[in-house]
Amino acid sequence: MEEDTLLVECVPNFSEGRRAHVVDQIVDAMAAVSGIKVLDRHSDPDHNRSVITFVGHPEAVLEAAYRGIAAAAQLIDMDQHSGQHPRIGAADVVPFVPVRGVTLADCAALAQRLGQRVGHELGIPVYLYEAAALRPERRALPDVRRGEYEGLKAAITTDPSRLPDYGPARIGPAGAVAVGARPLLVAFNVYLSTADVEVARQIARAVRESSGGLPHVRALGMLVGGQAQVSMNLTDVSETPLHRVFEAVRGEAHRCGVEVASSEIVGMVAQQVLLNAARWYLQLDTFSLEQIIENRLGSLCCPE
Amino acid sequence: MEEDTLLVECVPNFSEGRRAHVVDQIVDAMAAVSGIKVLDRHSDPDHNRSVITFVGHPEAVLEAAYRGIAAAAQLIDMDQHSGQHPRIGAADVVPFVPVRGVTLADCAALAQRLGQRVGHELGIPVYLYEAAALRPERRALPDVRRGEYEGLKAAITTDPSRLPDYGPARIGPAGAVAVGARPLLVAFNVYLSTADVEVARQIARAVRESSGGLPHVRALGMLVGGQAQVSMNLTDVSETPLHRVFEAVRGEAHRCGVEVASSEIVGMVAQQVLLNAARWYLQLDTFSLEQIIENRLGSLCCPE
Repeated sequence: MEEDTLLVECVPNFSEGRRAHVVDQIVDAMAAVSGIKVLDRHSDPDHNRSVITFVGHPEAVLEAAYRGIAAAAQLIDMDQHSGQHPRIGAADVVPFVPVRGVTLADCAALAQRLGQRVGHELGIPVYLYEAAALRPERRALPDVRRGEYEGLKAAITTDPSRLPDYGPARIGPAGAVAVGARPLLVAFNVYLSTADVEVARQIARAVRESSGGLPHVRALGMLVGGQAQVSMNLTDVSETPLHRVFEAVRGEAHRCGVEVASSEIVGMVAQQVLLNAARWYLQLDTFSLEQIIENRLGSLCCPE
Repeated sequence: MEEDTLLVECVPNFSEGRRAHVVDQIVDAMAAVSGIKVLDRHSDPDHNRSVITFVGHPEAVLEAAYRGIAAAAQLIDMDQHSGQHPRIGAADVVPFVPVRGVTLADCAALAQRLGQRVGHELGIPVYLYEAAALRPERRALPDVRRGEYEGLKAAITTDPSRLPDYGPARIGPAGAVAVGARPLLVAFNVYLSTADVEVARQIARAVRESSGGLPHVRALGMLVGGQAQVSMNLTDVSETPLHRVFEAVRGEAHRCGVEVASSEIVGMVAQQVLLNAARWYLQLDTFSLEQIIENRLGSLCCPE
């Protein structure tokens, strides 16, 4: 894989979902970094929160995330913030997600570098979570966010277990930030040739991790447009690939006397996820991503 | 499909395979065009011929092909050329191949625009062939190249059927050029769980177009490393997709009491070919290429 085809996604959540001009300024600060592409932005006024999705080369993504956190710290006063969604800071959570040519461990290392910079240069307390966590009790985000901004403000000075991984043990109006790494999530739905939602529920129980199915699969059975659907979140397709989940659903459906009518991926997905499926079905055991014409264009694009 | 993600491949063949500095100058002239990526170059001294493969946005590819033809016309004297491969000019054949977001008809239109420019601005006779042919008798390249440079030089002035599509009806030391459009070719081999080459030959006969199989499939049975192999060229995967060919081979193999051991794609392939396979196997009926993160990076890259 050529260096310049490396791709990381970052999905920072900011505690502002009402004042569009504030969100604009934060997004502009990140988008100003060369080699960054903002794919999506979503603001929720009830949550008073905005979720921005952008991708780029790991170094560019690191820089953009830093600038986004800095801008949010200047523009958002957590003492004035209210909203339905749990939050600890102006820039609340900043996860890095591997898309192409990088591993989850690479993203965890990126999160640690960002955490160090934010702690030292911006003076904001940083907690590393999920795959970037330095302490096992900080892997789960709800544990990191316990007590939210208001509770953490007190606890950080009194409870040694709440000391940040980087930055000062004191909370200013920008709050704290949770920086992490997680695998790419794929939202995958399979429609069945039946209107009987019970069949979808039975298949969901058979394939999901929580009831003895495949690891990294969450599944629910539901009725969508009169058609039974197995609605899934695949939380680590590098370990449990899309095709394995699809074949499991297909096998269970067949066992129930129904068939797969169609399937859908909701939202975005990395090229690699679908190529892995093609490679598996076509038995292309020796296929290399370098054989794809589009992947040879790297040096045209994304200058360092 | 965003305008800036359009991708065309061009595979010009030049009548120089011995003097590396001449080939360098031709390649440099083409590579100087912004937005062009040279993927491969191959020179054969016996054929005294070089094949260059490059890709880019259609307009950039058109410009680069023009500059390659102009450079070859200045650097190669066909009156001094000898080699084993049939040829009619310094730039001998220039085919355009659709890779992404463009059709074969788009490539034929590109070939016609290039032909016009070469004929009018460079004064070189141009013959349009294959999908770009303006006359049915010029679809096949051997018909266009009949008599080669030396024969065409005489015929062009005496035989009305040999008049060029563009440019003057006279041949200078740069010769003439055949400009065309063709589908992307995929070289696809399937290995069987047997050392019996007869089984591979039988399957090849069953799946290839020439003996009643699938359109746009050429196939041979052979023995490679002690393993029976069905070796195929798929000459139009937009009409006869990879997965259909693979499933046909698999069905025939099963019928013969053997199984598919593995398969391979030789050389390069467009992303779309494998995504179509993934889409078919996973029944992703509504999937759009826009859902692939990498395909959203277009405007980062390849500035117009």
